[in-house]
Amino acid sequence: MIIPSKRNIELAYQTVKRYAHCTPVLTSQSINSILGCELFFKCENFQKVGAFKFRGASNAVFSLSNAQALKGVCTHSSGNHAAALALAAAIRGIPSYIVMPSNAPSIKRKAVEGYGAKIFTCKPTQEAREKELERVKIETGATFIHPYENFEVICGQGTASLELLDEVKDLQTLITPVGGGGLFSGTLIYTKETNPHIEVYAGEPQNADDAFRSLRDGTLYPSINPNTIADGLRTSLCPLTLSIIQKYADGILPVSEELIVKAMRLVWERMKIIIEPSSAVPVAAVMLNPEKFNGKRVGIIISGGNVDVENLPF
Amino acid sequence: MIIPSKRNIELAYQTVKRYAHCTPVLTSQSINSILGCELFFKCENFQKVGAFKFRGASNAVFSLSNAQALKGVCTHSSGNHAAALALAAAIRGIPSYIVMPSNAPSIKRKAVEGYGAKIFTCKPTQEAREKELERVKIETGATFIHPYENFEVICGQGTASLELLDEVKDLQTLITPVGGGGLFSGTLIYTKETNPHIEVYAGEPQNADDAFRSLRDGTLYPSINPNTIADGLRTSLCPLTLSIIQKYADGILPVSEELIVKAMRLVWERMKIIIEPSSAVPVAAVMLNPEKFNGKRVGIIISGGNVDVENLPF
Repeated sequence: MIIPSKRNIELAYQTVKRYAHCTPVLTSQSINSILGCELFFKCENFQKVGAFKFRGASNAVFSLSNAQALKGVCTHSSGNHAAALALAAAIRGIPSYIVMPSNAPSIKRKAVEGYGAKIFTCKPTQEAREKELERVKIETGATFIHPYENFEVICGQGTASLELLDEVKDLQTLITPVGGGGLFSGTLIYTKETNPHIEVYAGEPQNADDAFRSLRDGTLYPSINPNTIADGLRTSLCPLTLSIIQKYADGILPVSEELIVKAMRLVWERMKIIIEPSSAVPVAAVMLNPEKFNGKRVGIIISGGNVDVENLPF
Repeated sequence: MIIPSKRNIELAYQTVKRYAHCTPVLTSQSINSILGCELFFKCENFQKVGAFKFRGASNAVFSLSNAQALKGVCTHSSGNHAAALALAAAIRGIPSYIVMPSNAPSIKRKAVEGYGAKIFTCKPTQEAREKELERVKIETGATFIHPYENFEVICGQGTASLELLDEVKDLQTLITPVGGGGLFSGTLIYTKETNPHIEVYAGEPQNADDAFRSLRDGTLYPSINPNTIADGLRTSLCPLTLSIIQKYADGILPVSEELIVKAMRLVWERMKIIIEPSSAVPVAAVMLNPEKFNGKRVGIIISGGNVDVENLPF
């Protein structure tokens, strides 16, 4: 198990910056005054495919040798990683194969199809997904790009904090959401190896607090059908992301569903930007822990903006 | 009736830029490819109070003499102009008095109160509003700042196009929404007196097409309880705005309610920004008139982002 370093993230950035947007950092005086600190929102909701996932996917796809790339890439996902991988593959001009559960929302299916991926439908269980992916791998010879248990993916995700620290000086704290831990790991490596005095936390839904418990107990807990609105954070850590989090994290902050919706609404109403529930989790963590953030310059990575506007929690 | 000139807008900008945000210009590759032209969105939804109205209100408030200002400002409005005027007055440290109909949404009432205005409630008729305003004016000696029938307000609204033309070169067309005509007038003056070859249109709800008919027939038609989701565009032109529109406009483009909602959803989903229905009207106009905009560089002024997230049309 090789852990990436800051240097690996800098190298990844040479690739990522050619394909991904350098997203804006937004601020809001009214939210600052409500929450009592100075917040800097790194807006990956404006990233290609509407989520930071395009950073990791593009880095992974463009890191393949020509021989590997020719056979394409594959993954199982019903979320942002599937769309990101499909788009990155389309840009490189190689095939992508996505295994999706039969209950995936048709809107997500269409998005992935729109990027030119070939979709394989399976039963909505973890076992069926893995079995079908194995079959696709053997049939096509495609390279499996895991959404976070992947060196190049983690390096790609770390480039969001690279841009943020480059643009905003003197940040004292940084917060991301944590699901599988790819974004949190990349952020931890880049930030702590740049300036170990910057505190780095993750926000996590209380109803899916496997990462919090895994860090506390030093063992990997699976995430079993967690009931949270933050649909991007229902996965569990892997050995690679857990070891990075153990090495560097200042803490994981669980938040309630009610507070996630309140934070999401605050950002929508005050900043006029659309963020998905997962992105509201770090904002909720600031609301819940004023003693940690009061008066500080706090960076927040807004992970994405993909919501079904016909199914809002307001 | 004195019509402002480009020079007046430039002078207004010396005031406005001290208090208002220079809002970003955003673009979207996916919307460009769907609509077949290159769109530049001037995002006044990110302006203070969430709407361009703060430009005109701040220019009007800071143009008053100290003697006038001491007695405060007043207006009747249940929308963005009320909030903008209240904030501008609060910044100058003078009182503001807002006449609001009894059926104004409580969320808007609270926003205006939050900026420190004193609110007077009246019956929800035009007559009651004007009568109550007259009473307030006499009682307080405050200066009435009309939302668009006001020289300084029109100059302030024109500063959005000043910033847009300064940032984006070689625009061929520009579109705003039209309600009372303040934003459209200011945009027309600044744009046409900078470069008469730039075509300037307004989008207007078909269900509230009084400006379209007024321009066509050369006479002022009132707007009587129009039934449109674009709540910022229910007002009618005044002599001042009609004469500016007659002098400079290339046309007013009516659009259906259905298309307004479709355009609003397109921007929400693709750009991840929150725009109010009135702001979707120019986007709908581009959708409806591809022959006018195909292949062109088109500026759109996104007028505001104040929506009630509990009452969305999706």
